[in-house]
Amino acid sequence: MTHLDVSNQFQFWRWLNQINARSTQPDRPGQTRLVYSPSWFAAQQALIDFGTAADLVTCVDDIGNVYLDYPGTDNQVIATGSHMDTVVNGGQFDGLYGILGGLQAIMNLKQRFGRPRHTLRLIAFSEEEGSRFNATFTGSKYYVRQEMPPTILTDINRIDFSTARQQAVKQLLKLPEVQHFQPNLPTSFTELHIEQGPRLMTQHATIGLVCGIVGQRRYSVDVIGATNHAGTTPMHLRHDALQSAITLITKLRLAAKALDSELTFTVGQLSVSPNVANVIPGRVTFSIDIRHDQSSILTQFEQQLHTLITERPDKAIKCHVQQWVNDLPVKLDARLLTMNRQITQDLGYPTTTLVSGAGHDSYILSQAVPTTMLFVPSVGGISHAPNEQTNPADLAAGIDVLTESLRRQAY
Amino acid sequence: MTHLDVSNQFQFWRWLNQINARSTQPDRPGQTRLVYSPSWFAAQQALIDFGTAADLVTCVDDIGNVYLDYPGTDNQVIATGSHMDTVVNGGQFDGLYGILGGLQAIMNLKQRFGRPRHTLRLIAFSEEEGSRFNATFTGSKYYVRQEMPPTILTDINRIDFSTARQQAVKQLLKLPEVQHFQPNLPTSFTELHIEQGPRLMTQHATIGLVCGIVGQRRYSVDVIGATNHAGTTPMHLRHDALQSAITLITKLRLAAKALDSELTFTVGQLSVSPNVANVIPGRVTFSIDIRHDQSSILTQFEQQLHTLITERPDKAIKCHVQQWVNDLPVKLDARLLTMNRQITQDLGYPTTTLVSGAGHDSYILSQAVPTTMLFVPSVGGISHAPNEQTNPADLAAGIDVLTESLRRQAY
Repeated sequence: MTHLDVSNQFQFWRWLNQINARSTQPDRPGQTRLVYSPSWFAAQQALIDFGTAADLVTCVDDIGNVYLDYPGTDNQVIATGSHMDTVVNGGQFDGLYGILGGLQAIMNLKQRFGRPRHTLRLIAFSEEEGSRFNATFTGSKYYVRQEMPPTILTDINRIDFSTARQQAVKQLLKLPEVQHFQPNLPTSFTELHIEQGPRLMTQHATIGLVCGIVGQRRYSVDVIGATNHAGTTPMHLRHDALQSAITLITKLRLAAKALDSELTFTVGQLSVSPNVANVIPGRVTFSIDIRHDQSSILTQFEQQLHTLITERPDKAIKCHVQQWVNDLPVKLDARLLTMNRQITQDLGYPTTTLVSGAGHDSYILSQAVPTTMLFVPSVGGISHAPNEQTNPADLAAGIDVLTESLRRQAY
Repeated sequence: MTHLDVSNQFQFWRWLNQINARSTQPDRPGQTRLVYSPSWFAAQQALIDFGTAADLVTCVDDIGNVYLDYPGTDNQVIATGSHMDTVVNGGQFDGLYGILGGLQAIMNLKQRFGRPRHTLRLIAFSEEEGSRFNATFTGSKYYVRQEMPPTILTDINRIDFSTARQQAVKQLLKLPEVQHFQPNLPTSFTELHIEQGPRLMTQHATIGLVCGIVGQRRYSVDVIGATNHAGTTPMHLRHDALQSAITLITKLRLAAKALDSELTFTVGQLSVSPNVANVIPGRVTFSIDIRHDQSSILTQFEQQLHTLITERPDKAIKCHVQQWVNDLPVKLDARLLTMNRQITQDLGYPTTTLVSGAGHDSYILSQAVPTTMLFVPSVGGISHAPNEQTNPADLAAGIDVLTESLRRQAY
């Protein structure tokens, strides 16, 4: 069989640049496309324009997911896609590659084979990163369960989730040719994504065949001491929330290391109050993100976390922990994995089979429908950063494999 | 001799409440009166109103210091006062007590003894805390040296110092009866202030006689690592700026402790970038504040700081330190100290003699003119916090001693 001819009709790069241009700001590096923000809205709007220009049926649901359907002859649906949001100062491919690669794959099939048996559906999920509100995968969770996240959610500017959601969705529904309904679940879901890690590169693989996804838990820890004057309070009379938080984080990092070398432990967010040079901090809040493919390891860490926050030499320091993510490890669909492995062999791409260290929309979809994932290499394993990069040939290879995978499923 | 009768003509509380009401915000506890902010302007404006209502000669200089003169029969000047700015979420007495206590003392003398031999001058210095810009004592430094701080200073909102200064001063000079000039230096300066520490309380002293002020140095430390994905980057391949900063701060705290038990070491400000739960921090910036009454101890710590930032196991982490405060320890005027000690004995107030752990405007004034300080107790030693408190009887006692001290100097 022959590779996809990318010399013509390869619109992927034009689409990518148009959308990323809308989420680049002069004063901050990389892409910042937080859910329901102006740059996010501009991106979903652009995608809808691409879809309607290609005669796809366009629809938006109440959480802001965008669906582009190329209708088939029966009522089964073969879906692909990823998320439209990014982290703060993120890269140009995380999420967006799966959306525009999926659109390119559907365009390739439309051009070469015409109307499919099963409907081909591209999905741009509204949110996956949890970078604006303390909730993740809200787009894909809504699609499979029709559940809204808790209404109390607010961002750092105290804007609440539902207000932001309603305004953004209302604007999207004003666009021409956009329908408003909740599409049925697909027969299968295939997600194309960058690896965001170093393994494909180190193993010289072009395509990563994903057999499962790690479980992850996130916590918010509050350390409350006593604000006081930095010059007049003797060291032994202080209740310094930052120094207590530092001691706690150090113990937690050592506990994670001792537990399992594959367990990842990250404190990505830390804020100090009042955060002034000559004032002893009275309060510190920080996040914990832990991931592993075995729930038992995550549970053991969580037990140690609860033990360590109660072990405080200074009883005047109060400490609270709140969990806001608890996602179990999952296995992806075996049949689709075998099919994709066969495709990569037929097309002659070197592959590796791996567990994903990152959560993905596939994590949620796999709980409802047969789901599979394809990875392409990330240069230097760098992601969630402005210098996130993938070689153009690898991006084309991923779209090539996805195109053939969707063809075998939908025709 | 008799105590000040505070039963009538005691306007201090009315003034205090009027000014603090202007720097209280519904969404944040305590007083926030950052230099040149709307609440700061409202406070200086209110003080000018109090002064003109009392027939004092009112003048503002180019940095926003407010001077209220009760003219004497010769051209010598006896000055008192303190600073009008606060820290973020500060208390109601830090700085403001010395201004309104000083105004009350001058009103007491005006009412009982009329025109003095030497001019009595109340000074409300524009800024002392360094809470908005990375510069401290800009008000008193300008008065004694007529020097502006470096023009490159900007606040967290990127507003630069000189723009903020010029706008605020321009507005103050529009007020009726406000003159615009740079007053001459006084013959002496007496500052009334809350202790902001626990020593007067623990020693059951009503008045603290301050013999000197500690030296202090402040630094800003930048730790630069590599931003990356929290799930897909193995622990051993990370360059986590926050974990490196935590290790460095822990070593610094232990170094300070080993050096001298009287050395204070505070990290009051710490910011993480990009500060998102699922992203490994790429950059951390934090402040260091150290204080001691011996320069040699501060210098030894500084040497260890420079050694420790170069000792990094992970060479991919870059670390920079910048010093932005270097104030030497000072001794205050011995003659005025002796006179104040005599006054407290004559009035029967229990006292203690101490070195101030906080910098004060007196620190700057003492380098130009004979300077003395009077402390009153801080309940629980708490300051730079919303629950900063001093007993009303102690506040009255401080004003009583200041009134007599100014009388002996000016009449």
